[in-house]
Amino acid sequence: MPVSPGQTLSELRARKPLIHQITNYVVMNETANATLALGALPVMAHAPQEVEEMAAAAGALVLNIGTLSEHWIEAMLLAGRATEGLIVLDPVGAGATRYRTETAKRLLDELEITVIRGNAAEIATLAGREADIRGVESLGATDAAEELAREAAGSLGVIAAVTGPIDYVSDGERVLSVANGHELLGMVSGTGCMSTAITGAFLAAKTDGPLEAAAEALAAFGVAGEDAAREANGPGTFHAALYDALYNLDPATLDERARIGE
Amino acid sequence: MPVSPGQTLSELRARKPLIHQITNYVVMNETANATLALGALPVMAHAPQEVEEMAAAAGALVLNIGTLSEHWIEAMLLAGRATEGLIVLDPVGAGATRYRTETAKRLLDELEITVIRGNAAEIATLAGREADIRGVESLGATDAAEELAREAAGSLGVIAAVTGPIDYVSDGERVLSVANGHELLGMVSGTGCMSTAITGAFLAAKTDGPLEAAAEALAAFGVAGEDAAREANGPGTFHAALYDALYNLDPATLDERARIGE
Amino acid sequence: MPVSPGQTLSELRARKPLIHQITNYVVMNETANATLALGALPVMAHAPQEVEEMAAAAGALVLNIGTLSEHWIEAMLLAGRATEGLIVLDPVGAGATRYRTETAKRLLDELEITVIRGNAAEIATLAGREADIRGVESLGATDAAEELAREAAGSLGVIAAVTGPIDYVSDGERVLSVANGHELLGMVSGTGCMSTAITGAFLAAKTDGPLEAAAEALAAFGVAGEDAAREANGPGTFHAALYDALYNLDPATLDERARIGE
Repeated sequence: MPVSPGQTLSELRARKPLIHQITNYVVMNETANATLALGALPVMAHAPQEVEEMAAAAGALVLNIGTLSEHWIEAMLLAGRATEGLIVLDPVGAGATRYRTETAKRLLDELEITVIRGNAAEIATLAGREADIRGVESLGATDAAEELAREAAGSLGVIAAVTGPIDYVSDGERVLSVANGHELLGMVSGTGCMSTAITGAFLAAKTDGPLEAAAEALAAFGVAGEDAAREANGPGTFHAALYDALYNLDPATLDERARIGE
Repeated sequence: MPVSPGQTLSELRARKPLIHQITNYVVMNETANATLALGALPVMAHAPQEVEEMAAAAGALVLNIGTLSEHWIEAMLLAGRATEGLIVLDPVGAGATRYRTETAKRLLDELEITVIRGNAAEIATLAGREADIRGVESLGATDAAEELAREAAGSLGVIAAVTGPIDYVSDGERVLSVANGHELLGMVSGTGCMSTAITGAFLAAKTDGPLEAAAEALAAFGVAGEDAAREANGPGTFHAALYDALYNLDPATLDERARIGE
Repeated sequence: MPVSPGQTLSELRARKPLIHQITNYVVMNETANATLALGALPVMAHAPQEVEEMAAAAGALVLNIGTLSEHWIEAMLLAGRATEGLIVLDPVGAGATRYRTETAKRLLDELEITVIRGNAAEIATLAGREADIRGVESLGATDAAEELAREAAGSLGVIAAVTGPIDYVSDGERVLSVANGHELLGMVSGTGCMSTAITGAFLAAKTDGPLEAAAEALAAFGVAGEDAAREANGPGTFHAALYDALYNLDPATLDERARIGE
């Protein structure tokens, strides 16, 4: 499957897939707006009475454990079993508390997750390695992130997207690297969650190439971050400019600007 | 009752009515900020222990089913029975799942709703028509929106505000049209919900003319959208500029700028 | 303990304390982003299965009752007993409903709260005085705020931070005043909650001088508000500029710019 974030973005904007997100309270508005600015349609629904119906209509399902509680986990399981779209999991804070680690593992066990997108500490925790995490921030060295992506993908049986200064996306054999982005992304709460939502949107537009789609999504988001940084005086104006940049992303130049390697 | 959004806005800013909102997790901050920027006082409260007391103190009650669950519906019913203010309902996603459709109908049945504000698909669903909805977005043609507003108002026994490229507000007999707004409003999650909150604020300021108040609210919000678009490079900067525009709305010129027809 | 917001801010940025926040749905994103922009690490967690573990890892715990319900109160109690960090309470809307007043009192009774940060009406309610509150906004005169801070601190056995045009922070004996800020702070929902979160971050960086730390936090936040106002056309652009200003706060000039008196 060729790598072309520009082509996938064009496909996405033409089809406007519905991206069902069961995510945390902190970032709901932000991931909805990022999805919408990119060109897909976000929807949030978590009630047991409706998650299956909504998930069945969705092009992709995004699960995010950032503010967890029992009935939200049940909703994730119901939706995950009902959807015919690909599923992305964001294991926010796995490693920070046992509850988060165990919930992420349970979702990986019970559902057919296609992509897991997290920082190095979160993914390392789930792959059974030592990890240094403070709250939901990864503090460890990321030199080993490429190997971590490959190992985690292999042991968890998913595509693992480990994001950091350079992102690594692996299916357990191949590893794609993505060298786009800007350090201000780390100064806005929810940008990791946004990148997961955008991964869902790219998966919905390229269902037959999820490894490539996941890398393309991170490249597109990183390029938008680069554009936003040029307009910004700090994280607040960067945050606003990030939605502008996603909306204004030009498919015609995106392939050139994407720094995806293998 | 004469139509004068400028006069109602002046009244609103002088009286600063409390607008009690039981709304969805995605847009709470956004509707609070829109209400505050306009000049009213927002408050969010949903616990059964306090909703009646809060609703009783409110100038208007805004109900929004965007992220539904059972105890939130109970809160809406308790608040709706306790308030002496007018009630606005935003049936987000009615038609997308049975749970949303049924909940919207239940609220319409059990409470004295004054205004329902939704897109064409949501209102059509509740009026018993076919509707094309994806997630929470209306996909159908809106040519028939004027007639839909009249029919829905008649059959539901409320004032129906159907928003789209042109908004139509009807009490079942008269239909007011509102031709303000900007397409970027459709690229920011929660702008529909904001227009509902602002409808609540206008109702609180003009309790004896709810048809006119609902149209005035949509005109005022649309004019603010037009102002915001001039400052924007995309949906992120538009979103920030929208609060500025609501805050800076000039009652003295609003009547001229409002494109309200009958 | 000397007053030096610049030094405390430098300490905070060097140590990046984890600030565990159990706060309301309306402002979660905003307080997370304010904490992050300032230089500390926010984390939100409220499930009974994990709050103790998260609170035990935190440098400070921020409790905020803005959108209350029973299981959130239980989470606050569990976290408050488990943390070794200092605790700040934001009694949003105390006085507006009995449930909020009683919950704030219960948290004060059952936990070792170090600082309570609220507007004059909220603090007056908890100190047993008459208060004029509409929703969550204080409407009363603030002339008596200095004396109120001293009295509330004495009767509640905490440090009381009463914010308004001039903020007063007291331990029951000394009263520090803070004359920084800008009126646009009152036009953005959640700025009070942000000031509480930032108080938590300053407490974590200066655990042995909580009176001074609380005043320093309000001065730093006020100075950021002054900087943001210079970039703003209204509350929307002010809100974005506020995060920029927190991020760009210069410890070297902060002591000069802080208008802290005694």
